Amino acid sequence: MKSFIEYSSDTDFPIENLPYGVFTSAKNDRKHIGVAIGDWILDLNVISHLFDGPLLKHEQNVFKEETLNTFMGFSKAYWIEARKTLQNLLDVSTTILQNDTELRKRAFVKQNEAQMHVPVDIGDYTDFYSSLHHATNVGIMFRGKDNALFENWKYLPVGYHGRSSSIVISGTPITRPYGQTLPVEGAAPHFGPCRLMDFELEVGAFIGGKPNKLGERITAKNAEEHIFGFVLLNDWSARDIQKWEYIPLGPFTAKNLGSTISPWVVTVEALRPYIVDNYPQDPTPFPYLRHDDSFNFDIKLEVDITTEKSPVATTVCRSNFKYMYWTVKQQLAQQTVTGCNVRPGDLLGSGTISGEVADSFGSMLELAWKGTKPIRLSTGEERKFLQDGDTVTLRGFCVNGNGVKIGFGKCEGKLLPAIPFVE
Amino acid sequence: MKSFIEYSSDTDFPIENLPYGVFTSAKNDRKHIGVAIGDWILDLNVISHLFDGPLLKHEQNVFKEETLNTFMGFSKAYWIEARKTLQNLLDVSTTILQNDTELRKRAFVKQNEAQMHVPVDIGDYTDFYSSLHHATNVGIMFRGKDNALFENWKYLPVGYHGRSSSIVISGTPITRPYGQTLPVEGAAPHFGPCRLMDFELEVGAFIGGKPNKLGERITAKNAEEHIFGFVLLNDWSARDIQKWEYIPLGPFTAKNLGSTISPWVVTVEALRPYIVDNYPQDPTPFPYLRHDDSFNFDIKLEVDITTEKSPVATTVCRSNFKYMYWTVKQQLAQQTVTGCNVRPGDLLGSGTISGEVADSFGSMLELAWKGTKPIRLSTGEERKFLQDGDTVTLRGFCVNGNGVKIGFGKCEGKLLPAIPFVE
Repeated sequence: MKSFIEYSSDTDFPIENLPYGVFTSAKNDRKHIGVAIGDWILDLNVISHLFDGPLLKHEQNVFKEETLNTFMGFSKAYWIEARKTLQNLLDVSTTILQNDTELRKRAFVKQNEAQMHVPVDIGDYTDFYSSLHHATNVGIMFRGKDNALFENWKYLPVGYHGRSSSIVISGTPITRPYGQTLPVEGAAPHFGPCRLMDFELEVGAFIGGKPNKLGERITAKNAEEHIFGFVLLNDWSARDIQKWEYIPLGPFTAKNLGSTISPWVVTVEALRPYIVDNYPQDPTPFPYLRHDDSFNFDIKLEVDITTEKSPVATTVCRSNFKYMYWTVKQQLAQQTVTGCNVRPGDLLGSGTISGEVADSFGSMLELAWKGTKPIRLSTGEERKFLQDGDTVTLRGFCVNGNGVKIGFGKCEGKLLPAIPFVE
Repeated sequence: MKSFIEYSSDTDFPIENLPYGVFTSAKNDRKHIGVAIGDWILDLNVISHLFDGPLLKHEQNVFKEETLNTFMGFSKAYWIEARKTLQNLLDVSTTILQNDTELRKRAFVKQNEAQMHVPVDIGDYTDFYSSLHHATNVGIMFRGKDNALFENWKYLPVGYHGRSSSIVISGTPITRPYGQTLPVEGAAPHFGPCRLMDFELEVGAFIGGKPNKLGERITAKNAEEHIFGFVLLNDWSARDIQKWEYIPLGPFTAKNLGSTISPWVVTVEALRPYIVDNYPQDPTPFPYLRHDDSFNFDIKLEVDITTEKSPVATTVCRSNFKYMYWTVKQQLAQQTVTGCNVRPGDLLGSGTISGEVADSFGSMLELAWKGTKPIRLSTGEERKFLQDGDTVTLRGFCVNGNGVKIGFGKCEGKLLPAIPFVE
């Protein structure tokens, strides 16, 4: 495929990708839905009248909304028609947009002149814990090799409800939090700035399609209609605060201080060529968690740390989404097994995605092995956990034999110093 | 105070109460904001032009919205002005509404002819665990007397993020869920209908006022401006599912199957005469959790169970909101201590509220002491946990010396049989 929009071969956003986002720009301070192509954004608000397929010609107003929720709430047939329309409009052989100079001027905005926003009104956010290597690493560190995985881990995708309000878009700074910690076991807790600040490399899946009713299950076999697309997700974590607070109800203030997502929602359709075998599962899951097709994705994931000392980043982690033990379909089946209703725009986080080898671990906790193996950065600095001023950048992309790259853009945030507590 | 609307002395909704809700009726299928008075609803959509105070005369449209979020997002001064305006309009000595026959006809709807709705777009829901007796009871049952309370419990209000999508209004049936359980320790888990279905007697607090920004703390001392009002909350719980899934990230599908709230949001102002001393706290909490004023409420709470055998209910629990160890101000301070932003309409659940004596425990788990002391109902039936067809009704009310009663209405739900799983 070839677009009339020119882009380099290593762009994250070729015509085969076409991820959705929401942006404002100097031209418009109202939020518009757009699609990334090369270095540009195609403003769907401006070209909504060109969605003339049998389904979307009756629903063009959906592209004039300020979030993707309504569009996500349509069925898969609509998503596929939209993708087809967009690929056709952008194709080098199609003239309707290409040759309309006035429309082209209004319809394309440079990405570096736009401000991206959280593209979805996220009703509910769930964070899973679905990487075997991550769960095993954490288990070994805190409970030893023999008890690394909890008994339930291979029977169900363990997860917990997260906080929607504090999900922010790439570029938003994150403040080092204050909180209670227990520096010395058995002593009294301490209140002060978090000392063990961490990132977590995750991928988030946005729910779409027709909402299930309260009381209705979505099985893994029926999950496909409900999965719209993916973003990168940094689940910033205050490890010392988490350790003190999480018993018995799970992580709370250690996680709700901010979660960063990348701005472009890459669709399942764009990622389909990169589907690989599911992770082998033993024991065989219960029927509600079973699906016959492969729904695991070969998405290369990287994490950079850039300190205030130098603009040169160090890639501290090279992982892959394919290391997920549980698929997103299985996560959604678990989310709804007791009848919980999901809504378009809900977000399912994968949990930290760690691979098999030490430099593929998706958090500082694992990379520096609980502080025992500090990481050396290209600046010569060492890190056990994050320091103030550090910028964490997640990147994700798929490449295959024919040279097409499907990228996620970046998911970035800088850690600011704690704000002192004044009574 | 006396209203021109007549009501009996034991109504939940005298002129001193005036809780807010959202309803539809035969007259209007669009959601309207209303206020309960006796057996009636005063439709604020119809009388929005009568809010002529210095603040609200510029904001009358807020009463034409379909949720309470915008109104909740105003500052306390607006809430107080609205209350004053409504008490004046409804007063027996005020004629403006009383003598306008045509307006009165449009403005009042009978509660038993209206359908109530979840009155708020609940962005995020957090459930706490703030009753000392409940936490102690559960601790004794599962870990013995010596380890009943976890080490962190008296240092911070333990809580976890819940599910917003499955919060439903009183009257909505709840379906017994399927899920994984571990009937025999060490054996393989089982998939099937929940066998240990429970209610939890809670009170929920709705957040209002100006949202804090991500990274900003709200201390307990500054919390008052952010607390709008209260509802009853039944946090339905699948105990056997919870036990198997909750390690290490907390309750998930055992709780998101449905949470029921009462339809009327009773304001802090209406409850102010029923404030009592805070629960004594030892150790003294960290400064961010301290507030000097009393913010504990003498709200009598009751739970009825009605089976399909008879319409006669059995009151199985008599508790009180005043048994809360942590105040709502402290809960909000904990919610935001790491900089988590809250939004108007967010809901904070108290956690199960159990009193000191056995018939004040706020869950079947405690009332029947893990199934060892079955409860006898007035029908002669016994219950260890809930059975299909059981209706659970929570009630809450304040009474004081001068005979004024401030009630919450009811929070009710019937447990339906599980829907068989078909592959």
